[in-house]
Amino acid sequence: MPAENGQSRVVIEGVRPQVDGGRFAVKQTVGDLVQVQVDMFADGHDVLAGVLMYRKSGESTWQETPLIPDVNDLWEASFPVDTPGNWEFTFTGWIDRFASWHRDFLKRVAAEQDVRVDLLTGAELVSETVEHLREQAGSSLEQDLERLADWQRRLSDSNATSHVTRICADTGLPRLMARHCPREFATRCETIYPVQVDRERGRFSAWYEMFPRSASPDPSRPGTLRDVQARLPYVASMGFDVLYLPPIHPIGRQFRKGPNNAEKAGPGDPGSPWAIGAAEGGHTAIAPELGTLADFRQLVQAARGYDMEIALDIAFQCAPDHPWVRQHPQWFRARPDGTIQYAENPPKKYQDIYPLNFETDDWQALWNALRDVFLYWIREGVKVFRVDNPHTKPFPFWEWCLAEIRREHPDVLFLAEAFTRPKIMHRLGKLGYSQSYTYFTWRNTKEELTEYLEELTQTDVANFYRPNFWPSTPDILHAELQLGGRPTFMARLVLAATMTASYGIYGPPYELCWNTPVKEGSEEFLNSEKYQVHHHDLDQPGSLRSLMTQLNTIRKEHQCLQRNEFVQFHPIDNDQLICYSKRSADAAEIIFVAVNLDPVHTQSGFVELPLEDFDLDPQQSYQMHDLLSGARYVWNGPRNYIELSPEVLPAHVFRIRRQVRTERDFEYYE
Amino acid sequence: MPAENGQSRVVIEGVRPQVDGGRFAVKQTVGDLVQVQVDMFADGHDVLAGVLMYRKSGESTWQETPLIPDVNDLWEASFPVDTPGNWEFTFTGWIDRFASWHRDFLKRVAAEQDVRVDLLTGAELVSETVEHLREQAGSSLEQDLERLADWQRRLSDSNATSHVTRICADTGLPRLMARHCPREFATRCETIYPVQVDRERGRFSAWYEMFPRSASPDPSRPGTLRDVQARLPYVASMGFDVLYLPPIHPIGRQFRKGPNNAEKAGPGDPGSPWAIGAAEGGHTAIAPELGTLADFRQLVQAARGYDMEIALDIAFQCAPDHPWVRQHPQWFRARPDGTIQYAENPPKKYQDIYPLNFETDDWQALWNALRDVFLYWIREGVKVFRVDNPHTKPFPFWEWCLAEIRREHPDVLFLAEAFTRPKIMHRLGKLGYSQSYTYFTWRNTKEELTEYLEELTQTDVANFYRPNFWPSTPDILHAELQLGGRPTFMARLVLAATMTASYGIYGPPYELCWNTPVKEGSEEFLNSEKYQVHHHDLDQPGSLRSLMTQLNTIRKEHQCLQRNEFVQFHPIDNDQLICYSKRSADAAEIIFVAVNLDPVHTQSGFVELPLEDFDLDPQQSYQMHDLLSGARYVWNGPRNYIELSPEVLPAHVFRIRRQVRTERDFEYYE
Repeated sequence: MPAENGQSRVVIEGVRPQVDGGRFAVKQTVGDLVQVQVDMFADGHDVLAGVLMYRKSGESTWQETPLIPDVNDLWEASFPVDTPGNWEFTFTGWIDRFASWHRDFLKRVAAEQDVRVDLLTGAELVSETVEHLREQAGSSLEQDLERLADWQRRLSDSNATSHVTRICADTGLPRLMARHCPREFATRCETIYPVQVDRERGRFSAWYEMFPRSASPDPSRPGTLRDVQARLPYVASMGFDVLYLPPIHPIGRQFRKGPNNAEKAGPGDPGSPWAIGAAEGGHTAIAPELGTLADFRQLVQAARGYDMEIALDIAFQCAPDHPWVRQHPQWFRARPDGTIQYAENPPKKYQDIYPLNFETDDWQALWNALRDVFLYWIREGVKVFRVDNPHTKPFPFWEWCLAEIRREHPDVLFLAEAFTRPKIMHRLGKLGYSQSYTYFTWRNTKEELTEYLEELTQTDVANFYRPNFWPSTPDILHAELQLGGRPTFMARLVLAATMTASYGIYGPPYELCWNTPVKEGSEEFLNSEKYQVHHHDLDQPGSLRSLMTQLNTIRKEHQCLQRNEFVQFHPIDNDQLICYSKRSADAAEIIFVAVNLDPVHTQSGFVELPLEDFDLDPQQSYQMHDLLSGARYVWNGPRNYIELSPEVLPAHVFRIRRQVRTERDFEYYE
Repeated sequence: MPAENGQSRVVIEGVRPQVDGGRFAVKQTVGDLVQVQVDMFADGHDVLAGVLMYRKSGESTWQETPLIPDVNDLWEASFPVDTPGNWEFTFTGWIDRFASWHRDFLKRVAAEQDVRVDLLTGAELVSETVEHLREQAGSSLEQDLERLADWQRRLSDSNATSHVTRICADTGLPRLMARHCPREFATRCETIYPVQVDRERGRFSAWYEMFPRSASPDPSRPGTLRDVQARLPYVASMGFDVLYLPPIHPIGRQFRKGPNNAEKAGPGDPGSPWAIGAAEGGHTAIAPELGTLADFRQLVQAARGYDMEIALDIAFQCAPDHPWVRQHPQWFRARPDGTIQYAENPPKKYQDIYPLNFETDDWQALWNALRDVFLYWIREGVKVFRVDNPHTKPFPFWEWCLAEIRREHPDVLFLAEAFTRPKIMHRLGKLGYSQSYTYFTWRNTKEELTEYLEELTQTDVANFYRPNFWPSTPDILHAELQLGGRPTFMARLVLAATMTASYGIYGPPYELCWNTPVKEGSEEFLNSEKYQVHHHDLDQPGSLRSLMTQLNTIRKEHQCLQRNEFVQFHPIDNDQLICYSKRSADAAEIIFVAVNLDPVHTQSGFVELPLEDFDLDPQQSYQMHDLLSGARYVWNGPRNYIELSPEVLPAHVFRIRRQVRTERDFEYYE
């Protein structure tokens, strides 16, 4: 038998949103109104009342907002989250004895029953509340206390029956009682549900990745951090807001790889930035060939001036000459012959990389050291991290590490670069990664794209997993891009920029449409920037720079593209054409996108629009304003024609504009 | 930072079946193999191993069975539950270092790499296991210990490289290591998942409800418990296995209701059995007009002889003259005028009923007293209870009460008579009710029936909610039965008996097709047995007795009708015809049901059968053997004709029989 609470009759269950029953946090961003639903009910027919309780984690008092009943025992409420960090919510519900009495009292009076005893019951309930209020004292309650004491007298007056009509009509008493009636035998929800609130860029961001050493304007020397700084206006002019740099640390010399991943580097070969650590230092050092810490500080500062921020790549692995290998040999796995275990995927060997051994007995020191890498760069002004292969480090480490960092720095964002099996990618999202790489790169057909975006945006996955769509990365040049060339680069760019609120471009190879693989059937670039220095001609004809600029402008001007709710796909009778829309909750703003997935042929078809969902009058025409071409088309009814040529521009990004009637009876589009 | 377990890398999540993350038990029955799935993975690429752990609750040691990997980090296992009661399961998973080594070793050897160091690594792993085994001692391990020590020598032999092919081919080492390798840094699942195992009748039962006082063969006197005993052969002959009696306790005299719920009873009126308690006693007494405790004991005993059991109706409410009203006035709500609050649904008053006040400060004594009512009748041999209006008593009470009783009496079954909102009905299922009344009574169209049965059998609801379909009850004579008459009685009987594994009949009014309501628009029977004594002519022409007998026989002979898995609806081009099948997991046994929902017209249509799901050869004909009429039809291909007349029999219950070729090249149906 429960020691207490045997008198608590209210049940609270079915809380949403939640992740794994409250084990993990739901993701939100600053400024959101968190919409919460819960099932609440009790035995019998009494009236219930309840509150949503919420607070920033660590605060001692809860804020409350009333739960509003919907149908079938579903209750709703919402709360604002105005600062980044951990928030939490829960619920309390109770039998509202006065409201129950009042409901029944009105029915009895309507049925002209004798209500003498019922008036006394009401008086008793008011009397209990008066006593409860008196115990609380507080002058702010004085007036309500007097009013309630007055009501108590009126209800218990032997003459009260002659005033029942007035008593029924008065709304003051129910209001007073709702405010002050003690919450007798209240039920507290068994779980406190966590919410991870990121700043807005956690939800809405446009990333641009570039190799600093390829940023030199001078073909005779490699690029530096100062060259990156000089490149800022270019990147900013396109509208990106996160400039992400592959690792900038000293590159190992032992087993250094040559161009195209050659097993042996030549004397002048720069090596892979992911082979981290050399005599000059490890994860908190800067490769001397890129510049100094002062240069880096200047870059971070300068980026801010363009409303951009620098994201660093954190890859927890070491080159054989990383200082940790000498300082902390126990953090690596020793082989029976005394050597250190390098990375392998048998029969492949990666002798330039030593993985960390998280099973070391010295794991606590290792965890601290890794966390300190983040803290070091945070102190240098970095607030966005792209984490390399997080799925090859233990999940408990990430859960601890991300929480540790967020505790002091709730504005730091983490992007998980995990291209692996779905549940693993999901788990990293649950553990606190702000954003995640996705399978977008390998989702190319209409069917694949539709199914995948619906999974990401319209299932529970959306509660913990924020997708960041990349059409390519230094590691992945998909066959579609290789074969489709520029039309496919345009199509995939439009898809990435409009399907999800966060996307990223690996430039300049993307805007310059690099599409040559190292060999047939490979997803690796020929002469990949991972292993050698490049110089890019950014003014090359055919650059997608202006399309990127347009897309980022459209994204900034349309809030519906800054979130992933209200995505909808629209049927079109051509498998090469994909049509979808994103809209605001009230459908006031609708962006309708059509993309031709065929890089060779012009494709056309009839698309079906859900006029009702779009709040469009079926009797009135509406305007499709192509924000890319500037063209405006007048459409009628649900079924309309679309034709897209891959050469010109294989996409429409329409703003749908409704007719509005003006004072002068003249029609125009809003 | 976690105090320990920082080295544990395996993640266990996504357990199913489960109810609310393990807060409530999943339901199974004795003899079931509980099929469990779980997501298990770790960082990196190591091989994992894990076990499902299970036990009867209260046992100190777990039994284990290995988890078998399926695709995408899904692992499966099952365990048998051979006794009723509470069971529980959880999981442990770990990195299988030896299996990881072995997998990589085979790859290295295949790639003809130098494996000298790898052999030593393998020897180290074997050596650790040898030490681990030595610590455990135990002579049963001696032989394995010797073998492993031998392997350790072979792997560390400087000459081992010349034997790699033999080492690779040998399966003895991996088997030995899988058995004995220590589970280093294992992860235990965070939750222990409960399972409620009922005896088989919890899942598969056919109920027959009857009023004892209407069981008299002599029209000049009311029936008694002895008359019920005399009626046992009749009920048993129809194949029912639970005989459920409305309350048999003394009926209150104050405010007793007359026939058709008349406000005042006449001097000879027997009153409603649900107005429980009078001078003769309360919930543990027997109404003197029905007989004695000795009679009851005899009845319980006699029923067993027919493989039936008696179910009692437990209605926790009191007539004003119930002994508890005097003995425990604090268990009732007092009104300001000193009277006791009777039941109300304003403006309706039920002055013959006092509800119990579960908010009483004396709630612990009240809870104990109510539990003791069950225990009293359990001591008298009753193992099945139909609980009246459980949703008007607090949910925490039921959770405690059902658990308390099950602890000592795991074979007791409870049927929840809650006709209320869905989440409340579900909650009672979650709290431990073995079976539940449903909305079946109000689901009449093909669309309604399809949607409802799919919800009950093919969603998570099936984990905790066992539906019991009743075409009518003493409280509910649905308009469809009133209007449709005998054809509808037949159709609804077939639906109830074949859609779910448990169903119930309120007889004799059902087999005699009573269909007159007390007034138009009411679901109450005219001259309801609730308020007066009846005498039934069981041999009346048109009785559905033989159809009931047939259906219960078919149910007993076909295991697929004894469970709710593998229900499937089949498209037929006529809205008045509903077609569905139930089958065994391997489709060896298929029952295909077609029902005409139209009580007036013959209906026909073409039904579409899923030949592949049914494991039917599309090139071969198959036989539809109607188990009701005995007719056998030969069908070909997926699309076949059905015609059903409401007058004759508005249903087919087909056993599908495949062709089988015999030795003599003669074809027949199995």
